[in-house]
Amino acid sequence: MMKKRLFTPGPISVPEDVLLEMAKPIIHHRTPEFLEIAKQAIEDLKYFFQTKNDVFIIAGSGTAAMEAAVVNVLSPGEKALVISAGKFGERFVELVKTFGAEAIVIEPGWGNPVDLENIKSVLKQNRDIKAVFATLVETSTGTSYDIEGLGKLVSDFPETLLIVDGISGLGAVECKTDLWGIDILVSGSQKALSLPPGLSFISISEKAWEKINNSSTPRYYLDLKKYKKAMEKFDFPFTMAVSLVCGLKKSLEKIKQQGIENLWRMHRKRAMAVRGAAIAMGLEIFSKSPSDAVTAIVLPHTIDGEKFCSDMRKEFGMSVAGGQDKLKGRVIRISHFGYQDDFDTIAVIAGIEVMLKKYKHQVELGSGVKQAMKILFSLQ
Amino acid sequence: MMKKRLFTPGPISVPEDVLLEMAKPIIHHRTPEFLEIAKQAIEDLKYFFQTKNDVFIIAGSGTAAMEAAVVNVLSPGEKALVISAGKFGERFVELVKTFGAEAIVIEPGWGNPVDLENIKSVLKQNRDIKAVFATLVETSTGTSYDIEGLGKLVSDFPETLLIVDGISGLGAVECKTDLWGIDILVSGSQKALSLPPGLSFISISEKAWEKINNSSTPRYYLDLKKYKKAMEKFDFPFTMAVSLVCGLKKSLEKIKQQGIENLWRMHRKRAMAVRGAAIAMGLEIFSKSPSDAVTAIVLPHTIDGEKFCSDMRKEFGMSVAGGQDKLKGRVIRISHFGYQDDFDTIAVIAGIEVMLKKYKHQVELGSGVKQAMKILFSLQ
Repeated sequence: MMKKRLFTPGPISVPEDVLLEMAKPIIHHRTPEFLEIAKQAIEDLKYFFQTKNDVFIIAGSGTAAMEAAVVNVLSPGEKALVISAGKFGERFVELVKTFGAEAIVIEPGWGNPVDLENIKSVLKQNRDIKAVFATLVETSTGTSYDIEGLGKLVSDFPETLLIVDGISGLGAVECKTDLWGIDILVSGSQKALSLPPGLSFISISEKAWEKINNSSTPRYYLDLKKYKKAMEKFDFPFTMAVSLVCGLKKSLEKIKQQGIENLWRMHRKRAMAVRGAAIAMGLEIFSKSPSDAVTAIVLPHTIDGEKFCSDMRKEFGMSVAGGQDKLKGRVIRISHFGYQDDFDTIAVIAGIEVMLKKYKHQVELGSGVKQAMKILFSLQ
Repeated sequence: MMKKRLFTPGPISVPEDVLLEMAKPIIHHRTPEFLEIAKQAIEDLKYFFQTKNDVFIIAGSGTAAMEAAVVNVLSPGEKALVISAGKFGERFVELVKTFGAEAIVIEPGWGNPVDLENIKSVLKQNRDIKAVFATLVETSTGTSYDIEGLGKLVSDFPETLLIVDGISGLGAVECKTDLWGIDILVSGSQKALSLPPGLSFISISEKAWEKINNSSTPRYYLDLKKYKKAMEKFDFPFTMAVSLVCGLKKSLEKIKQQGIENLWRMHRKRAMAVRGAAIAMGLEIFSKSPSDAVTAIVLPHTIDGEKFCSDMRKEFGMSVAGGQDKLKGRVIRISHFGYQDDFDTIAVIAGIEVMLKKYKHQVELGSGVKQAMKILFSLQ
């Protein structure tokens, strides 16, 4: 018997009661019954986003919501500043360029924090920058960014929007949409919400609506004005993925019960445990500003990371992610979100230790686990 | 106890074993295990589409696949002929115009078949028409279109693509993508595939690829070149809705076992039964070319269709659809696809009869059911 455990930074494991919620008989998306579910889900999403702004559900991957943030806001030829320090920062650069806007790209380097003073001076020199694109947690490097600081800074530029990719971070790390002045925040279902992939979310501030109402980039499926119009009746402009929304409602209910601050705390504790364990095993954390959502651990040079991940899956049933693009083969990435508890965290550390041993890397069995246990069970 | 029955033209009821398949623990979308599922699903989708062309899965509603068909093929300023005789034909018109192409709109009128000679003469007069957009089954009116005939006609114009919205029709009515010369066919999960909404599908011919490779309309999430590149490894460019794809594989397995011709036959029989019953009850079928996927029945003037549908749901647990846009309140629409059998068809007819009686409409109880039974059980 091999039990399967997902530590990939999405998709993640989904709680059994949420899986069963989605396995209930399908209800039509334009019935009072479903609209009641959608209404509750939207209300709880606002809590999850920490916002009073509009929040919409899109049937599609996180990239669909990222594209919505670009095509609804920027008209061709307009300038945007994009902070890009990983695969998903690069995605915003690609999106901005694809739809004909100009991207001023700030590249602090993969795994490095961003220098806010530099952003400030670029914004001062380019008063016509319409939006700053940033990432809450860069999944490819396991790095957290100072969105609170960025929000303060951007608030000095009344014509500029702050647009944040919160796909991997939201729910795992602190993020206060309204308090921090995030105009547009996007997220996805297969991360801290512990749902299957297939839904993405987007919140829109009043300031962002002004821009959206005047943007000339063509859009249809991702036209936020269509979503706003339908939302007046808690409806959707296109057939919604009803079973996933039923799961969403259930998942948000549980998060609300737990309290978002406790959710952040839980992720922090597990991330600290994994980071502590990695260091105790003599390994390095890739990021200079490590996130509590995903941890990227640098593997010893002698180990092929792709094979390591594949062996973890085959031998222990554990899915951890390898590196992407320039980090391919060099790191393993472990998510702290989704349906997992402290003992799963211990399990994945134990799995890594044993696998390192099998790869002839010098590590004292139990050293990582011991450190993780200290962190996990003293912080409670 | 009120049992719920869905006869809406999507979403529909999903078989219990498919619901449970989707309730299984989530697997990561980049594991050999999932890629094996995706590979099988794609192979069986080709059978479902009756094509050897590329077929891709998109995480999104049917409209996402319709948009993909438009933005990948047409460059701004190019001409397209769109046959529009209902809400979804109109959607193609809106999409073509939104993305800056020119739409020559042929409007035979809601519920009417299209005059192929007219199409031919328009194509002859406009040799620069890049694509003809058509609908296999128009859900809003329950009308079938002669795509086979249209395919023959368009094949005389080697520079013109035939693009078909098969969202409501595919699997319910005969459709032979390759044999009929359909260059791009789009479909969705929540119809004859008996799945929840959330996935859409698109097939692309060699001839269409030439056009796609040269089209200049910006696209990213719906860029088919990205899907083709990923598909080389049975992968997806963006995180796929894995649980829905697991359901898709299961559903296609069952369809393959049954045989697509039998699936068409089954829909035809039920559609004939409902049409026969409606006439026996003294009602009219809205469409002049009724489809075997969805039947739109005209209600007596005295009856408010919206209330009728709502009462059917409240009193009998039966979801039938009302009319859309200009048909609002005037018709009820009954789907013949999804998880339903002949006895469910009898049930919905019985439900309509009883409700008509409650609305004081003169109808002999059992007259529709009797006619339906004759059709259902003599054709077997």
